[in-house]
Amino acid sequence: MSLDTTVLTIETGRSRGVFDITAEAARFVAGRGDGLLSVFVPHATAGIAIIETGAGSDQDLMDAIDEILPREEGRYRHRHGSPGHGADHVMPGLVAPSTTVPVLDGRLALGTWQSIVLVDPNRDNRVRQVRLSFLGSSGK
Amino acid sequence: MSLDTTVLTIETGRSRGVFDITAEAARFVAGRGDGLLSVFVPHATAGIAIIETGAGSDQDLMDAIDEILPREEGRYRHRHGSPGHGADHVMPGLVAPSTTVPVLDGRLALGTWQSIVLVDPNRDNRVRQVRLSFLGSSGK
Amino acid sequence: MSLDTTVLTIETGRSRGVFDITAEAARFVAGRGDGLLSVFVPHATAGIAIIETGAGSDQDLMDAIDEILPREEGRYRHRHGSPGHGADHVMPGLVAPSTTVPVLDGRLALGTWQSIVLVDPNRDNRVRQVRLSFLGSSGK
Repeated sequence: MSLDTTVLTIETGRSRGVFDITAEAARFVAGRGDGLLSVFVPHATAGIAIIETGAGSDQDLMDAIDEILPREEGRYRHRHGSPGHGADHVMPGLVAPSTTVPVLDGRLALGTWQSIVLVDPNRDNRVRQVRLSFLGSSGK
Repeated sequence: MSLDTTVLTIETGRSRGVFDITAEAARFVAGRGDGLLSVFVPHATAGIAIIETGAGSDQDLMDAIDEILPREEGRYRHRHGSPGHGADHVMPGLVAPSTTVPVLDGRLALGTWQSIVLVDPNRDNRVRQVRLSFLGSSGK
Repeated sequence: MSLDTTVLTIETGRSRGVFDITAEAARFVAGRGDGLLSVFVPHATAGIAIIETGAGSDQDLMDAIDEILPREEGRYRHRHGSPGHGADHVMPGLVAPSTTVPVLDGRLALGTWQSIVLVDPNRDNRVRQVRLSFLGSSGK
């Protein structure tokens, strides 16, 4: 048993929001056996979540984050970057940059309505990386 | 080393709230060796948390979720289901559906006051599944 | 492959806040191969987060937690301990006590600005434990 790992490059452009990476994760584990998939975003202003996408909840999550962590000038001690950027740095305390998904016979054991998403509240980063790591029996 | 996995069926009935699954998890890892236990709920409107139960904090957590994500009509883009259901779909962004607990010599390495709980804000699902997966030395 | 595990003892003294444990975690995985590091705090009033430290976001996170979970007398069902302690027991529902970090060739695969921190809102515990567990190829 060994760790197989890869890094996805996600072009988030100038938009902030939720980016569905389920298809990429499914492709990465396809053909493997049973194990655990670690999804990890190595950025201090991004998180990973597992939610339903495509029915509005992606935008609802961003709205909720903006209510919980208001992007007001002067509110945060962290003041580098554009206004509201202090909130971006608190977000990973609540929407963590790491999650783990079981993999069975090369398939993500997600529920029907679950998608793995990158949560990126930060407009200033146009490209994000996400590391996928599989620990289990390779099946290959 | 291989992944051992099982699915719990939790009867949540018509109530919403916090359901303690520590005993089931402890039973699942009993007799195994050292490893990591992944606890994963494959539903888009539920989460997994590790908190103290039985002294009020379970209900305190539900109250906090309802304050953070108010169940007001018209507040969420996601509008399927009963009123407030949009909030249920945002919750897993904050109370994630996945956690990992170390296992030592067949025992959960939880603290004295920690319990593993299913967090289910959704009244409309009467039965929930939780997947337990152990990766480590089987000890069996 | 086996699980290597250790327990850190963190002297938090009488202060509440965020305690950076990245150096300890890096030392623990140094010389190992590839795998997953589980970071787990076995206390019901603490959490683990991955954020930037040293530029104000540590205190910003504590402030955000205090806004999300106000430390008002009488607000929580859980009423043991000092005022506001009920909030401490809800916090791990949002800032979970468990995270997982990929390890490559004996190094934490963190981003440049990411640190692993113990989040301790509770003034009453002077010493905290954090369990580090590495599952992977030992490389030793």
